[in-house]
Amino acid sequence: MQNFSFQNPVKLLFGKGQIANIAGEIPTTARVLMTYGGGSIKANGVYDQVKAALAQHTLMEFGGIEPNPRYETLMKAVELARAEKLDYLLAVGGGSVLDGTKFIAAAIPFVGEPWDILSKAAPITSAVPLASVLTLPATGSEMNTFAVISRNSTHEKLAFGHPLVYPKFSVLDPETTFTLPPRQIANGVVDAFTHTMEQYLTYPADAPLQDRFAESILKTLIEEGPKTLANPTDYTSRANFMWCATMALNGIIGCGVPQDWATHMIGHELTALHEIDHARTLAIVLPSIMHVKRDTKQGKLLQYAERVWDIRTGTDAERIDAAIAATRKFFESMGLPTRLNAYNVGEEVAGIVADRLSSRGEVALGEHKDITAQTVRDILRMSI
Amino acid sequence: MQNFSFQNPVKLLFGKGQIANIAGEIPTTARVLMTYGGGSIKANGVYDQVKAALAQHTLMEFGGIEPNPRYETLMKAVELARAEKLDYLLAVGGGSVLDGTKFIAAAIPFVGEPWDILSKAAPITSAVPLASVLTLPATGSEMNTFAVISRNSTHEKLAFGHPLVYPKFSVLDPETTFTLPPRQIANGVVDAFTHTMEQYLTYPADAPLQDRFAESILKTLIEEGPKTLANPTDYTSRANFMWCATMALNGIIGCGVPQDWATHMIGHELTALHEIDHARTLAIVLPSIMHVKRDTKQGKLLQYAERVWDIRTGTDAERIDAAIAATRKFFESMGLPTRLNAYNVGEEVAGIVADRLSSRGEVALGEHKDITAQTVRDILRMSI
Repeated sequence: MQNFSFQNPVKLLFGKGQIANIAGEIPTTARVLMTYGGGSIKANGVYDQVKAALAQHTLMEFGGIEPNPRYETLMKAVELARAEKLDYLLAVGGGSVLDGTKFIAAAIPFVGEPWDILSKAAPITSAVPLASVLTLPATGSEMNTFAVISRNSTHEKLAFGHPLVYPKFSVLDPETTFTLPPRQIANGVVDAFTHTMEQYLTYPADAPLQDRFAESILKTLIEEGPKTLANPTDYTSRANFMWCATMALNGIIGCGVPQDWATHMIGHELTALHEIDHARTLAIVLPSIMHVKRDTKQGKLLQYAERVWDIRTGTDAERIDAAIAATRKFFESMGLPTRLNAYNVGEEVAGIVADRLSSRGEVALGEHKDITAQTVRDILRMSI
Repeated sequence: MQNFSFQNPVKLLFGKGQIANIAGEIPTTARVLMTYGGGSIKANGVYDQVKAALAQHTLMEFGGIEPNPRYETLMKAVELARAEKLDYLLAVGGGSVLDGTKFIAAAIPFVGEPWDILSKAAPITSAVPLASVLTLPATGSEMNTFAVISRNSTHEKLAFGHPLVYPKFSVLDPETTFTLPPRQIANGVVDAFTHTMEQYLTYPADAPLQDRFAESILKTLIEEGPKTLANPTDYTSRANFMWCATMALNGIIGCGVPQDWATHMIGHELTALHEIDHARTLAIVLPSIMHVKRDTKQGKLLQYAERVWDIRTGTDAERIDAAIAATRKFFESMGLPTRLNAYNVGEEVAGIVADRLSSRGEVALGEHKDITAQTVRDILRMSI
């Protein structure tokens, strides 16, 4: 096991009716900015629940945060918060709203050009406190420090993370997700699955508990994913999916183990270039990385085959092939294509993505930093 | 899944050499009281490492905290801290030192008789900040709010817990445990195993991820326990055991599921009466509870048999018997007797423990609150 430090102070309020309890979590003197996306929270009653819970608080709102939240949009919220001296952010929505709100929180007190937080890893020394009401299980943003932000003008999609943008609390009420479109649920399942794989499918690191925790999440997603897609108002399977998505990226399973994240790095480029949903890029890239990196990932691929998919017969190569095929089949069963041709994207994307990554510095992705620009090309050519 | 709220802000510093990093975690202006036990930390170098790390801090010390820490002893530390205006506690030791230090932290600012915190659940409104350097993996105290304290004069052993006594940070360096006596390692493995069972072996609650996480800890302890007992300086197995013990009782696996804790409640009485090591009381009581409550725990007992012990053949009753036997055999393989007669304790203890529990109010233990004074008698008679 590798040395690590870990701290995750986010308070979770999980279950039916928990939105009613948020007033007690936010200082009564706070000037709250509620952020949200396209307005689905108004259709499904979550907006009203939040307003009712915060009836005694000073509350303003900012809607219209997009999927793949845009810097240009978020900066309008920053201006509003600065002008109105708002000092507490409540993100109500999915990962995009949460990520966007983390950026707003860091940008409000930032001196200089806030885009530098993303493009130059400019240091953050303070942030406005934020919290969340999660309505889309997927990204784990409700219990981590990460945010991914896009910029229209440059077609860039960049990430940052800082302990100052941990939510103070997050409400996870599975009922708030009952009205989500099936596409978003399917995306969420694959997103959580891939987050787990990024921390698991590397090389054996003498960390059996972390391995088993990761396998626990994968197996539960494989069981609960199809159920929650088929029965959107089945509280139990929705709750279990929601809990898996949070545990997949709150830091626990990554303690003391190597991590990959190449799938995400390449996937972000596909979203930035072609506006393919985040999770859908992962469904395309992950199987190809499993193929291309099958030698360095062999130990874990065989463990994954046996423990997650119960694949126990055949040669090493056959079991690895079967595990990759099972992964692909699972993604496709959730309705996510695993080939770029489903999006009318052709082979030229391989070079473009490799060049874009190269333009930001030497490409050295994956747990061994051995995924070069050439490997990225190979991975994407295999994904057509 | 049940509704829950969860928050665990403890910072972990895990791995070799992490003691050197504690100075940065404690305010430079703090007046630190270092607490410890019988002095083993002086023999194994941990004391010197801590002193060196805190060379720039104001540091006093208080040694002599016993296994099953005594109220009488702890109150001397409270007096010292009050007199010297010490405002930060650093517990260096195992669960007893940590638990005792949590009590000291709550007692220093407490107005009135601090024993009331334990005996009357007197409310705690403030506590001195504390942190820990863990040298004995077992209780999980390094990442939770719980403490169990004994009182000489009354032979009582009582528990309290409060978010104010979460350690600010805990150092988990497996190397600090290399010199522990085998008995303490064996006890620690069984303690962590039983903590997991108390949160797992109840009834199915539609919480598959929590179940799998618990099974992950149990299986890892079954694998790593004998290894770390046989090879005390094998860093890897010691690290894995240490991580299991922390994850067994930091709240994660208990989120949203019913919990039992009857084994602990009965075990505490055996320690208070006969000074049997805490973990050793658990090894005695748990198998009997599994027997006596086999009907209400049937679903989980069968799942435990299959997933943890790979017991797949026989009738339901036979598989449950086999799972109980496997548990007993595991404890005994670690050197812990599972019968009271190993301690020359006879049947009379059954009535004495039942009466002691009854004297503090109606006995209603377990996940169904259906373990009465009579059930306690049955459980202990079966444990002779």
